[in-house]
Amino acid sequence: MIERNAYIGGCDGVSAVSSAELIGEKPLGTMAHSLMICVGDEKKAFKAFNAAVEPEVRRVALVDTFQDEKFGALTAAEALGQKLYAVRLDTPSSRRGDFLKIMREVRWELDTRGFRDVKIFLSGGLDEYDILRYNSYADAYGVGTAISNAPVVDFAFDIVEVEGQPRAKRGKMSGKKQTFRCPECEARILAPFNDTEILCPCGGTGEPLLTQYIENGEIVKDLQSAQDIRRRVMSEIENRTIEPGA
Amino acid sequence: MIERNAYIGGCDGVSAVSSAELIGEKPLGTMAHSLMICVGDEKKAFKAFNAAVEPEVRRVALVDTFQDEKFGALTAAEALGQKLYAVRLDTPSSRRGDFLKIMREVRWELDTRGFRDVKIFLSGGLDEYDILRYNSYADAYGVGTAISNAPVVDFAFDIVEVEGQPRAKRGKMSGKKQTFRCPECEARILAPFNDTEILCPCGGTGEPLLTQYIENGEIVKDLQSAQDIRRRVMSEIENRTIEPGA
Amino acid sequence: MIERNAYIGGCDGVSAVSSAELIGEKPLGTMAHSLMICVGDEKKAFKAFNAAVEPEVRRVALVDTFQDEKFGALTAAEALGQKLYAVRLDTPSSRRGDFLKIMREVRWELDTRGFRDVKIFLSGGLDEYDILRYNSYADAYGVGTAISNAPVVDFAFDIVEVEGQPRAKRGKMSGKKQTFRCPECEARILAPFNDTEILCPCGGTGEPLLTQYIENGEIVKDLQSAQDIRRRVMSEIENRTIEPGA
Amino acid sequence: MIERNAYIGGCDGVSAVSSAELIGEKPLGTMAHSLMICVGDEKKAFKAFNAAVEPEVRRVALVDTFQDEKFGALTAAEALGQKLYAVRLDTPSSRRGDFLKIMREVRWELDTRGFRDVKIFLSGGLDEYDILRYNSYADAYGVGTAISNAPVVDFAFDIVEVEGQPRAKRGKMSGKKQTFRCPECEARILAPFNDTEILCPCGGTGEPLLTQYIENGEIVKDLQSAQDIRRRVMSEIENRTIEPGA
Amino acid sequence: MIERNAYIGGCDGVSAVSSAELIGEKPLGTMAHSLMICVGDEKKAFKAFNAAVEPEVRRVALVDTFQDEKFGALTAAEALGQKLYAVRLDTPSSRRGDFLKIMREVRWELDTRGFRDVKIFLSGGLDEYDILRYNSYADAYGVGTAISNAPVVDFAFDIVEVEGQPRAKRGKMSGKKQTFRCPECEARILAPFNDTEILCPCGGTGEPLLTQYIENGEIVKDLQSAQDIRRRVMSEIENRTIEPGA
Amino acid sequence: MIERNAYIGGCDGVSAVSSAELIGEKPLGTMAHSLMICVGDEKKAFKAFNAAVEPEVRRVALVDTFQDEKFGALTAAEALGQKLYAVRLDTPSSRRGDFLKIMREVRWELDTRGFRDVKIFLSGGLDEYDILRYNSYADAYGVGTAISNAPVVDFAFDIVEVEGQPRAKRGKMSGKKQTFRCPECEARILAPFNDTEILCPCGGTGEPLLTQYIENGEIVKDLQSAQDIRRRVMSEIENRTIEPGA
Repeated sequence: MIERNAYIGGCDGVSAVSSAELIGEKPLGTMAHSLMICVGDEKKAFKAFNAAVEPEVRRVALVDTFQDEKFGALTAAEALGQKLYAVRLDTPSSRRGDFLKIMREVRWELDTRGFRDVKIFLSGGLDEYDILRYNSYADAYGVGTAISNAPVVDFAFDIVEVEGQPRAKRGKMSGKKQTFRCPECEARILAPFNDTEILCPCGGTGEPLLTQYIENGEIVKDLQSAQDIRRRVMSEIENRTIEPGA
Repeated sequence: MIERNAYIGGCDGVSAVSSAELIGEKPLGTMAHSLMICVGDEKKAFKAFNAAVEPEVRRVALVDTFQDEKFGALTAAEALGQKLYAVRLDTPSSRRGDFLKIMREVRWELDTRGFRDVKIFLSGGLDEYDILRYNSYADAYGVGTAISNAPVVDFAFDIVEVEGQPRAKRGKMSGKKQTFRCPECEARILAPFNDTEILCPCGGTGEPLLTQYIENGEIVKDLQSAQDIRRRVMSEIENRTIEPGA
Repeated sequence: MIERNAYIGGCDGVSAVSSAELIGEKPLGTMAHSLMICVGDEKKAFKAFNAAVEPEVRRVALVDTFQDEKFGALTAAEALGQKLYAVRLDTPSSRRGDFLKIMREVRWELDTRGFRDVKIFLSGGLDEYDILRYNSYADAYGVGTAISNAPVVDFAFDIVEVEGQPRAKRGKMSGKKQTFRCPECEARILAPFNDTEILCPCGGTGEPLLTQYIENGEIVKDLQSAQDIRRRVMSEIENRTIEPGA
Repeated sequence: MIERNAYIGGCDGVSAVSSAELIGEKPLGTMAHSLMICVGDEKKAFKAFNAAVEPEVRRVALVDTFQDEKFGALTAAEALGQKLYAVRLDTPSSRRGDFLKIMREVRWELDTRGFRDVKIFLSGGLDEYDILRYNSYADAYGVGTAISNAPVVDFAFDIVEVEGQPRAKRGKMSGKKQTFRCPECEARILAPFNDTEILCPCGGTGEPLLTQYIENGEIVKDLQSAQDIRRRVMSEIENRTIEPGA
Repeated sequence: MIERNAYIGGCDGVSAVSSAELIGEKPLGTMAHSLMICVGDEKKAFKAFNAAVEPEVRRVALVDTFQDEKFGALTAAEALGQKLYAVRLDTPSSRRGDFLKIMREVRWELDTRGFRDVKIFLSGGLDEYDILRYNSYADAYGVGTAISNAPVVDFAFDIVEVEGQPRAKRGKMSGKKQTFRCPECEARILAPFNDTEILCPCGGTGEPLLTQYIENGEIVKDLQSAQDIRRRVMSEIENRTIEPGA
Repeated sequence: MIERNAYIGGCDGVSAVSSAELIGEKPLGTMAHSLMICVGDEKKAFKAFNAAVEPEVRRVALVDTFQDEKFGALTAAEALGQKLYAVRLDTPSSRRGDFLKIMREVRWELDTRGFRDVKIFLSGGLDEYDILRYNSYADAYGVGTAISNAPVVDFAFDIVEVEGQPRAKRGKMSGKKQTFRCPECEARILAPFNDTEILCPCGGTGEPLLTQYIENGEIVKDLQSAQDIRRRVMSEIENRTIEPGA
């Protein structure tokens, strides 16, 4: 479920095979440190990977296992030549004094030797702030922990109406309610359930959000696919300023 | 699992029936706001609860539904008299300006009218710092959200030895390892796997912590009960200062 | 004097009878907690007030004595119906966890039952920052303590001229002085007393502010009324940006 | 009243003649800047003061009017010789870069020339923190503004009992009350009015503080003199740690 | 060297005779405190300076030796009349409570007596932030300590190429390099040494900055004069926003 | 002079040949990165150094040029075996994410392979706070920049006496002075020049610090050697709490 939500929220893909099946996409990933450790030599490991893996998979070399990233990137370039698509820096945090400067060196050394098209991938303990910081050098990111948990959202079930009469405890608003979404500005507006039309302060007309999915125990409406939900999320992020409703 | 861990970590009990079964204890709890809302009157609700519930259950009246806590507590005292064991304040956060002062008033009004033995229970959005703050008036706490999540603990599987030789990537210490616990000071000490005796800086002799539970697919050692683990945790908390090992 | 100054500074009215006489206005106010406490029941107290007070006085019900504000407001609506002009929330600080949320609930419950015209008044420990914060729900404010004191303004009498010659101690500017006010930008400009015309940096021509009120022991000029001073203060606040003069 | 309170709170004396009468002490003070400004020369002014004022008044020379304090102190020493009791530094804040350093220089220059017994008095915008800071050089302080105002203390009259029954609004504790003072630790303890004996947590026995001063319109008990109150205040400050009561 | 750098960086002149020779300018300066202390009286000292120094030197009176600046400035005006060009305030830090207010007083007292053309010079422990703060009253500044030291700039010599092949340690970029300056936006751009043309992001074309001054042990290009360097520095400061290059 | 002062202040030695001569000690140092870069391979460079340098020089291998420190240390151990005295980590700041963790790994890997006696030296941008932080793993430090500059100490020459009479400007204490040092507590005490005995507040008797080194143009007293000064500095640091004198 974590990987499905990450995908819906805008990630390009997931690496676990069963997660990929769930969302209907192909799994994506690069080589692991264990390959280098078992082979014992980075150059040999890059060549072994290249010999064994099907040609349509892009060659992304993991360059921080035994060597400094700058020399690891040069080793990958020597081993794979023009087949090298990207280098991945999973630099341990104890060696990450100025990650931007490490990337800049890797970029410079690759460029100096003619590998201007090789991309730089980052992974390891990255969050949304790191990504903003590293965008001037990095071309892609592998994010794990920062996306795999979230603050708890407190919620409660409350009785707000008894036999048609509004009744609620202190701290709760009484009566059955509807939430409207304004299609113009994405605002959410709370209103009594029987209000049928809500005018948004922005001028738009609110559309009710509560929808019946189950009737008499039967599912009466299809759920959206992960792709459709993701598309809507991306469109909301790109096209609108979403304000918290009333 | 959350409730099992809460119990192991020192909570007195849990309210979900299946969780209680899992840990081998009886479930515990008090009345809900929905009782008051359905009945529509706090006094009647307290009396109905008293009439319906078996006598060995302690009468803990929830006193914040419709009334201010101070008057709610007096209503409970009038309704249940000497049977009243405790009042529970689940005060909504919007009314929690100075919770300690509200408790002090409840305590004063109960005392003034002779209910010195009635206890005060708190619930609702409490964490460990609140508990320290409210201990001078509160006798028990119901804690939910603050205990139901935790920061993610990052971990990774790493190859550290290949065919008996230590080998590890940058940022990891090579070789198979053992962790020792010092029985004197509870320190944890990391050492190469073949070290058989470790002297703790405090003077104690470390005991190895890695234990084999499965051999050839067979479970060869019993798991501890929740009660036993809880007992050990409580004893470690009470008797020792635990320092992070090397 | 405090109430006169509050009125001059822009307050709508005062509640003490003698203060009102001093400034030439009618006193304003609402009911007190003592009414509810002596009657012992909020609904009865609202009805007694309504029966006893002359009809031209607006019915403003104090709704926080025994009940939560949300239920107090509903009680006032039931007791006074369409005669209810406003509810006053003097919520004790110990119950003021999120005052804005309490007001929002009161507003919602009144609206849901058709009392959209009933206003919300606030009182109790409010200052100018609270007012900015609560304006989205509150219609009027009763302010006491925050307006009844002020930081001490240090001042000193200094000799700055002896027999027509400028002479002053270290730290003081010598010579008799005039203060001019620029009618364009309200700046105050300090100048030697004999300067008769001062050009303000904004382009306006300064007008001298020192005026003789007493001559040979006789008052030779009328003092302004509180109403006139208030009008000038309000006009300065509304129309201009006042900068400290040189 | 301000000066009476300052005296009660521990000040040595007051300068206004009517205030001194009110508290039954002689007024105290030194010369003013206006003397120097009218005379136009510090040395002449010191000599004129010396010639005119009765011999039992101590000669305290104000040394910051026209000159730097260091040279002003030397001028006073030259003018008054062994009659000089103290110099007063009322240094304007614009010249008070490092007041301690100015005092140190004044002390050094006086000492170098044999005036080791001349004291240093400070005045001008001093508060309790300044006094702690300047104690290593200053021998006395004249304090005005810092002592002439205080934060407003909010209080309210509340009905807490109706016809012998405890009844109070939300946020107030019901019932008539007595305050006890513990003679051992000065703690104040609040209790129901009919409690006749209160044991303080420190072990002492509380003494009731409410005392009847008026009976049937007659004053039946003498008020304490300012001297007596001051003595008690000084003794409480010196001998005890006063904790806020319950 | 310090004074040469200060001049190059924009100072108007220097006071040490040999520094002035080095940069090819006349030395500048005002009178010293020692003059006043030896003469023992500020007025006599100002007159002696006026009598002794050649007429083309501007009369700048140092006014803080024995007197408060306000009275010192008046003494200078009395002694030198219309010959007084400026007063210099070297106020000791222990008397510098509010330097701006001291200047304002000096300005006021001079103006009141008709000395509107006399300028105010400041000196003593000033830095660039003080200058921004004092500009509304001060006409010139004497700066010493703040300009005579700077944070250490760390640098290192590194081998980056061996026999024509780029080779550098971790943390350094390999290969011989050229730095270009963009004449449009003053950006500095680092590039491999053989790059002959660099396009700046602003659209300008970078010009190489490395220039040969010594060939076969002979100086083959003249060094710029201090005046020329200063002119270029001032022009860069005035006309452009300089951003750090890549 | 910088290196002489560093030595006097407690450093063990200096690396520049002429500095070492000045202080009368042998220069100390380790290999440079240029050796590795010219040889092009760390192992070969370590062996070349070992072959070329006289046997009494301790073998300190610089292990951060091309490799990660952990593997560099293992390379040094392989190349030099039991001759290896220490490894030096001059880790570039861009790779210094958690320097303590890097040292811990180096220590672990060396220990695991039996090199428990090999020491760890640190260098590169270290200051006194780093040294406190790294002491648990590091055995020696090479410090440069942090010791090569200091904040400017402002000072001024002032006339304080004219023809035997004390006279000084505002802000300075007049008269010729002596400084005494208390041999008990190292306090410095300022006093008029003719005071011959000063009692320190600690009870000690102050000794005058001003000493004549030149008389009639002749040096009449020997200067102390760097060794002697260093010995006194170390002794003052170790044995006493030095307070700033009056």
